[in-house]
Amino acid sequence: MTPTQPLDLTTDLVTLTRALCDTPSVSGQESALADAVETALRAYPHLEVLRDGDTVVARTHAGRATRVVVAGHLDTVPVSDNLPTRLVGEGQHAEVWGRGTVDMKAGVAVQLALAAELAAPSRDVTWVFYDHEEVDASLNGLGRVARTNPQWLAGDFAVLCEPTAAGLEGGCNGTLRVEVRLQGVAAHSARAWMGRNAVHAAGEVLRRLEAYEPADVEVDGLVYREGLNAVLISGGTATNVIPESCVVTVNYRFAPDKDVDAALAHVRQVLDGFDVVVTDSAPGARPGLDAPLAKDFAAAVLAATGSAPTAKLGWTDVARFSALGTPAVNFGPGDPTLAHKSDERCPVHQIVASHAALRAWLTA
Amino acid sequence: MTPTQPLDLTTDLVTLTRALCDTPSVSGQESALADAVETALRAYPHLEVLRDGDTVVARTHAGRATRVVVAGHLDTVPVSDNLPTRLVGEGQHAEVWGRGTVDMKAGVAVQLALAAELAAPSRDVTWVFYDHEEVDASLNGLGRVARTNPQWLAGDFAVLCEPTAAGLEGGCNGTLRVEVRLQGVAAHSARAWMGRNAVHAAGEVLRRLEAYEPADVEVDGLVYREGLNAVLISGGTATNVIPESCVVTVNYRFAPDKDVDAALAHVRQVLDGFDVVVTDSAPGARPGLDAPLAKDFAAAVLAATGSAPTAKLGWTDVARFSALGTPAVNFGPGDPTLAHKSDERCPVHQIVASHAALRAWLTA
Repeated sequence: MTPTQPLDLTTDLVTLTRALCDTPSVSGQESALADAVETALRAYPHLEVLRDGDTVVARTHAGRATRVVVAGHLDTVPVSDNLPTRLVGEGQHAEVWGRGTVDMKAGVAVQLALAAELAAPSRDVTWVFYDHEEVDASLNGLGRVARTNPQWLAGDFAVLCEPTAAGLEGGCNGTLRVEVRLQGVAAHSARAWMGRNAVHAAGEVLRRLEAYEPADVEVDGLVYREGLNAVLISGGTATNVIPESCVVTVNYRFAPDKDVDAALAHVRQVLDGFDVVVTDSAPGARPGLDAPLAKDFAAAVLAATGSAPTAKLGWTDVARFSALGTPAVNFGPGDPTLAHKSDERCPVHQIVASHAALRAWLTA
Repeated sequence: MTPTQPLDLTTDLVTLTRALCDTPSVSGQESALADAVETALRAYPHLEVLRDGDTVVARTHAGRATRVVVAGHLDTVPVSDNLPTRLVGEGQHAEVWGRGTVDMKAGVAVQLALAAELAAPSRDVTWVFYDHEEVDASLNGLGRVARTNPQWLAGDFAVLCEPTAAGLEGGCNGTLRVEVRLQGVAAHSARAWMGRNAVHAAGEVLRRLEAYEPADVEVDGLVYREGLNAVLISGGTATNVIPESCVVTVNYRFAPDKDVDAALAHVRQVLDGFDVVVTDSAPGARPGLDAPLAKDFAAAVLAATGSAPTAKLGWTDVARFSALGTPAVNFGPGDPTLAHKSDERCPVHQIVASHAALRAWLTA
């Protein structure tokens, strides 16, 4: 789908947000939007524009001592009868409604406006617009560029414009998925005593998970709330057979004071005596708020929005920057609990405040 | 598939069993075998032969005061690389191996041999050979004939030649299936405290089932062993979402002292506080061993095999006769725990003993 008009990066933030959202870009179908972003950025001689698949990177070369990376993804989850966008309410109550407004095209609008505007920022900036964030991690555009062109992502600090309601959220929790595999012995359910019921055996696993008290863990001054939950369960083969197997998939969201190995050791301890198999994991990221650049940014956010840093609980691509050795934080407009919902909507004042905070930091 | 030769009902029982098994008749594909059975029976003028779909009924009209029904099904579960049949071992150790030997073509062989042989039985006999026993109950050939031609099944007593290792097994347990539906609130698993985990809630259901002590219930002098088991469990939608629903399918096998309503009341009591929805039920059948015909048959079995009556635990089509008002028992060669297995096999001596017991009863 091609936008009817080229993107105008000098228009107001609401118009730009709506233009981005009204060019649908569900994961795997980002090309039209990536083309429009690339074309718009190439109009600015202060930017070097690069392209890898549907990821567009634009860099200033103002000769500053430090370089920051400001990244956002172009794709969205599928449209749910919530496009085209609508502008609802006025003043402090004005909101842009529609798919992508929260996750995360309002943030992309802030990036694009500043990329056009800041010909001579106080720190060199690498603007990253990437593809395939909302699907399997193996497809993630930021991960791909980190493999194919890691030098494009080099920087002293990174800001990921995922929705945080315009508050600075540091680091992120890690995530670990395991399968707890229960083995029984099949038998006809009319002669149950000849078998051993694997689904009944899962009762003890669920009992421990139900009784588990998740920890609140302080890391670098921010409090990370953990969680240990069964997310899937499946067992049995037929309604007249004693189940010979049952699988409980458990997701542990762990604070960034632990690496994946430590997280797994904890899960194995909680589920001691059961067969625990890792299926998926991703390390968390420490908040990195002790870095001077981070302190400056936190001050700029506090000045623009009045809010102090908090911990990011969901896993985000800040962990990819962390893995590259670059401290990273989340900061962007929109309430993250509205992401992916059909009533996704973003307050205009958060878009304006996000723009103001980033602008202040990049021009101070 | 057509048998290469017509069925010879005067041959020995092993040859006849093997001929029946070597004409595969997986449920829905019984026509060739039903045709062969019908053709073979029509050669005997003492039999009136009737046909309904792939069910064949043959009746004597010897003017006796009582009529007994002897029934068996022609279909099998799918072949599992266990045909053609093999005869293994000698003497008391001889066994016929292959699909259908236990469930239940050795029993059908006994029926066919006696149908041919007993031109003037001491009680009139209705021989029933029916289709679609191994699949959904709505397709069951005996159930169909009970609806379309109930008079064909009329009798004072019925014997179902399901495998009982040549012992008389009276009545059958009933079966009830319910779904226990747990409802939670979905949330992203990074913010689990915003949801309510429906899979964790299933832990209490499994705990009660695990702790449940099934009863042994005496009915008409036979002991029925009950069972209450989770047979299926399913919950959750994705590995990053707190499950908003979980369903546990529970199967209660209950003694024939209870009807379906009483069984359901018991399950609701055990699972008090949970949402219990009935999905399937079938009443049991009392053993009916107080009827004079049954006592005579029990005596004939005891004389031929040395074994006394026991309770049938699985649900069988005896319950269909019971529902028609005809007392019914299970009696046939083969170990029922080998039914449906790839190593299904039937001892020759049980085939011979089953034939002897039925012959003695029907000629006394």
